[in-house]
Amino acid sequence: MADRPIITLLTDFGWGDGHIGVMKGVILDINPDCLIVDLAHHISPHDVMGAAFVLGQTYTFFPPGTIHVAVVDPGVGGPRKPLVLEAGDYLFVGPDNGVFTLVLKQEEGVRVYELIEERFRLPRVSQTFHGRDIFAPAAAHLSLEVTPEEMGPAVDINELTTLAIPDPVLDGEALLGEVIWVDHFGNLVTNISQEALGAFAPDETIEIEIKGERVRGLKTSYEEGEEGEVIALWGSAGFLEIALKERNLHSELGWGRGEKVRIRRRQ
Amino acid sequence: MADRPIITLLTDFGWGDGHIGVMKGVILDINPDCLIVDLAHHISPHDVMGAAFVLGQTYTFFPPGTIHVAVVDPGVGGPRKPLVLEAGDYLFVGPDNGVFTLVLKQEEGVRVYELIEERFRLPRVSQTFHGRDIFAPAAAHLSLEVTPEEMGPAVDINELTTLAIPDPVLDGEALLGEVIWVDHFGNLVTNISQEALGAFAPDETIEIEIKGERVRGLKTSYEEGEEGEVIALWGSAGFLEIALKERNLHSELGWGRGEKVRIRRRQ
Amino acid sequence: MADRPIITLLTDFGWGDGHIGVMKGVILDINPDCLIVDLAHHISPHDVMGAAFVLGQTYTFFPPGTIHVAVVDPGVGGPRKPLVLEAGDYLFVGPDNGVFTLVLKQEEGVRVYELIEERFRLPRVSQTFHGRDIFAPAAAHLSLEVTPEEMGPAVDINELTTLAIPDPVLDGEALLGEVIWVDHFGNLVTNISQEALGAFAPDETIEIEIKGERVRGLKTSYEEGEEGEVIALWGSAGFLEIALKERNLHSELGWGRGEKVRIRRRQ
Repeated sequence: MADRPIITLLTDFGWGDGHIGVMKGVILDINPDCLIVDLAHHISPHDVMGAAFVLGQTYTFFPPGTIHVAVVDPGVGGPRKPLVLEAGDYLFVGPDNGVFTLVLKQEEGVRVYELIEERFRLPRVSQTFHGRDIFAPAAAHLSLEVTPEEMGPAVDINELTTLAIPDPVLDGEALLGEVIWVDHFGNLVTNISQEALGAFAPDETIEIEIKGERVRGLKTSYEEGEEGEVIALWGSAGFLEIALKERNLHSELGWGRGEKVRIRRRQ
Repeated sequence: MADRPIITLLTDFGWGDGHIGVMKGVILDINPDCLIVDLAHHISPHDVMGAAFVLGQTYTFFPPGTIHVAVVDPGVGGPRKPLVLEAGDYLFVGPDNGVFTLVLKQEEGVRVYELIEERFRLPRVSQTFHGRDIFAPAAAHLSLEVTPEEMGPAVDINELTTLAIPDPVLDGEALLGEVIWVDHFGNLVTNISQEALGAFAPDETIEIEIKGERVRGLKTSYEEGEEGEVIALWGSAGFLEIALKERNLHSELGWGRGEKVRIRRRQ
Repeated sequence: MADRPIITLLTDFGWGDGHIGVMKGVILDINPDCLIVDLAHHISPHDVMGAAFVLGQTYTFFPPGTIHVAVVDPGVGGPRKPLVLEAGDYLFVGPDNGVFTLVLKQEEGVRVYELIEERFRLPRVSQTFHGRDIFAPAAAHLSLEVTPEEMGPAVDINELTTLAIPDPVLDGEALLGEVIWVDHFGNLVTNISQEALGAFAPDETIEIEIKGERVRGLKTSYEEGEEGEVIALWGSAGFLEIALKERNLHSELGWGRGEKVRIRRRQ
């Protein structure tokens, strides 16, 4: 653990309620020497898949030992388990609802524990805000070198809830993928990785079809092409992105998550 | 005072103008060793009542000695006084406009001073941004162990502006409360505390009426009930909440702050 | 450089994608001992002019030595250069697209370098996220006392991209300015400084015309005047502001950036 352990927070709380702030108060009351980093807080309410995507694209950029807390938790107070994961160089804290799906996909030898030890919770646990009452105190105690094992019993990794993240599939002569994320600028991130497309055809030979629109080849930046043109390029997470040059594709054309993307080799 | 004093910021500034950032610059220029925490920044513009509610529900979760700065300040530049409060284990800095109403309700022996000493302000004080020019520097100086007494003359606590926060009242055979906050998820927080309802009737025997809708008994989490059902449960601040299972009640039904809630004992 | 160097972040990323968080992860992985401050993150997407305005109004309030990172970067991946500036007491990191226009206007003896040394970038540089791959690592290395000179070749300041920020002009008997910013509360900030108006006429003798509406004299706070009245006053950055008393002028009247403001001496 670093001299100043890092705890990140990923939530769908927004900045209007004080929920983010109060989690920080709880953490600092237990360990005043940790460094808290806001990872993202405007995940759409209850969008566990979105949180899983953002966490999966970002957690490896933090220093080893970072404790990532993910609280997009529509099932708070219900039967879903509170968890701590040891995965690769990181610890993760959050509910068992699929928010760790991409971590589990990317890491091997993950160990998981159920956060049930009452001494690592706030004295009074509400039914509606486990971010404050369970997950924040657990992260703070982990930053003080309490071990995950001390937090509760091991959980079989095969019993964890995971989300079905679609992989691109071959469909006759075409590679069929779909949009899995819409970013703040209205760009569409697909599930087609550079690896998957590389195995299918060279970049410059492809034609992409989405909603009847055909896009030939890839641009190397958002600046290429004509204003208002539908373009395709490699996004920062290594996935194929569809964008409207200098504009917001999502709000102007209404295309969003789940839209199918069909890739063909050009004649 | 801790080794690394904590200053929290609560504003209606949003993240678009640099106003939050510049307050931090001012604080760090005076005391580079303090820790600044964002409590909430998307309070609705000029919503002093909302800021009072958020502050009242969160400030006690921070370590003793924390300095809470609240700048929701529609009267900036006008006659309202800039204040520092010593209340319980905390210091508070902000305008005399009611934003500290719930702190004053919860704490005893509160001492209040008017922030008029010019040496604890920026050299140039604007008429429109006392967050930057008066409140941020005052908080930074307090974190350096300047005492509230040094900041200006004592103010009689009975002369402070307070907001009328309605208490639930008995109305014949019913307990009558109202909605005092709408959270980021569209859930309605009422003014009916567990204590107030406990004195009225056992949880499981009550029927709640809001806008003609009748809700029987309380759920133990947002997950209980049918999708789209109006449900009631205890929220994280200890007040009765009304929610639309898995949906946003506020945006779908249009009910909001001020809505009356009537509770009856079931036959 | 201070014991704990400060790095500020100014972006149009919003809090939904994890982009802000991942930049912090990259910085902390290189220099775990720096202090990262969010300056503003809800600049309108691709609004370089807005970012230039916010940066210009705020950077001097930070301690000397602060490193300001500005990533509003619609041309990412294209030919625009990545830059580091030494300007006054500060360092600046960001793209050569005009975002530093107001810094260049306010500071003398600015030195500029192109960020091309690969050892100060992430090992893999994407085409679409230089905030993470180039600007964040550069800022972190600068906070470790790498010098700007080491980052790449000097750039002639006269070759930098700058935005045309209009100055107020005399038009017969009138002073003609325009709205250059709309703040979070819907107030309109003009380009008319106290200095410019002072050279034209005393405050109390002026009449302001905007969209056919005439405003006489200046208020000393947002609280003066009647509810719903169009008022004028000095804003916190020293520019003339037009506001709708207790309301949001921008959303109610639809006036925004570029609106002309004509000032006359009253008879």
